[in-house]
Amino acid sequence: MDIDVMENIFLLVLVTLFSVLQNAFIALKVEKECKKQDAAFERLSCAKRNCMDTYPTFLAVMWCAGICLSQAPAAFAGGVYLVTRQKYFVGYMGQTCQSTPGYLFGKRMLAFLFLMCLVGIVNYLLGQYSGSDYKEYVQTITKAASTLLLIP
Amino acid sequence: MDIDVMENIFLLVLVTLFSVLQNAFIALKVEKECKKQDAAFERLSCAKRNCMDTYPTFLAVMWCAGICLSQAPAAFAGGVYLVTRQKYFVGYMGQTCQSTPGYLFGKRMLAFLFLMCLVGIVNYLLGQYSGSDYKEYVQTITKAASTLLLIP
Amino acid sequence: MDIDVMENIFLLVLVTLFSVLQNAFIALKVEKECKKQDAAFERLSCAKRNCMDTYPTFLAVMWCAGICLSQAPAAFAGGVYLVTRQKYFVGYMGQTCQSTPGYLFGKRMLAFLFLMCLVGIVNYLLGQYSGSDYKEYVQTITKAASTLLLIP
Repeated sequence: MDIDVMENIFLLVLVTLFSVLQNAFIALKVEKECKKQDAAFERLSCAKRNCMDTYPTFLAVMWCAGICLSQAPAAFAGGVYLVTRQKYFVGYMGQTCQSTPGYLFGKRMLAFLFLMCLVGIVNYLLGQYSGSDYKEYVQTITKAASTLLLIP
Repeated sequence: MDIDVMENIFLLVLVTLFSVLQNAFIALKVEKECKKQDAAFERLSCAKRNCMDTYPTFLAVMWCAGICLSQAPAAFAGGVYLVTRQKYFVGYMGQTCQSTPGYLFGKRMLAFLFLMCLVGIVNYLLGQYSGSDYKEYVQTITKAASTLLLIP
Repeated sequence: MDIDVMENIFLLVLVTLFSVLQNAFIALKVEKECKKQDAAFERLSCAKRNCMDTYPTFLAVMWCAGICLSQAPAAFAGGVYLVTRQKYFVGYMGQTCQSTPGYLFGKRMLAFLFLMCLVGIVNYLLGQYSGSDYKEYVQTITKAASTLLLIP
């Protein structure tokens, strides 16, 4: 596609590529543990399932946020999410397979991306029906807000 | 991105946001049941897996249909699919974990979206090679046909 | 959307549709085996999970590669990946549920698509900062390279 489109998505593509690398890392890790078939394998396999269950949701929210509002904060939040996921996977020490906390790591990041989508849609509808366009204003606020995500 | 793009996708983004909300609802539901580790948890966890297995397929088909043909019927069918999924998840009463009927709820909606994609591609190829463009005609038919989805 | 966009994605949409058909095939196959609840069902259900775990990754990489660089090689690699997956699923004869080799079939295809994304991004950044645009040159190389994927 032409340069215009690339300009609006290349950060999102970059984060997507990192997430793919991470998926490969997770799969290789589980594969190495696979031959043992012990408790550690059970835990890893469970952690992998949790990561994979949230993966489409994460991709959908990040891309929507990046396209509807602005790409830099979306890609930033996506990157932070990937770091959280890495920490979650590497340090996974649950006793039994808890097939649920899939949304508990990185909840804040997903909520932020979700909000960005909402703001983008509201802003679009406002621009459509009242003629006012706060997009640049909103984008600045979003960029500032995205740094708040780093607060632990 | 600019207003033109938003105009063509904002309904799809809306439905995607609803589906993300639903995913969060499902994850929270399973999480609440998780501490018990009984039969009810088994069932819920299985229902969750079925929902998650079809989720990427659903997203892919809905977005393709919305971009290739027209967004309003695609978003409508997507919304109906989400309602079906909600009913499926809330009322999940299978005796054992049947890890399959993932495609059985909302099959009709997915088939409809799939057809929309096909029609969109055929229409594009026709326009490319014979110069005729039936897009508006086809879009009207699709909009009319999408109401038929409500028939139980 | 307008014709311009369709021109750049209709092959990707086609491959996506095929992958959806394949998902439906897999789900139906598992469903048929489901009533028996024996070892064969276990294996099929496991193969299905492996296929589903890689599905979002595959979609993400194929679309990014198609949009960032050029659609024909991306769609071609995607098609080859689907064939590999079909072979993997039909001939699945593992003794126990190995929940890992999800990335092992079609690894080469995914790596190729991943490289395409990288090249697309590097090329975009080069064009942005040094003014030179090797896109057509790169696209020709990619098309030639994609035939190498067929070597077993």
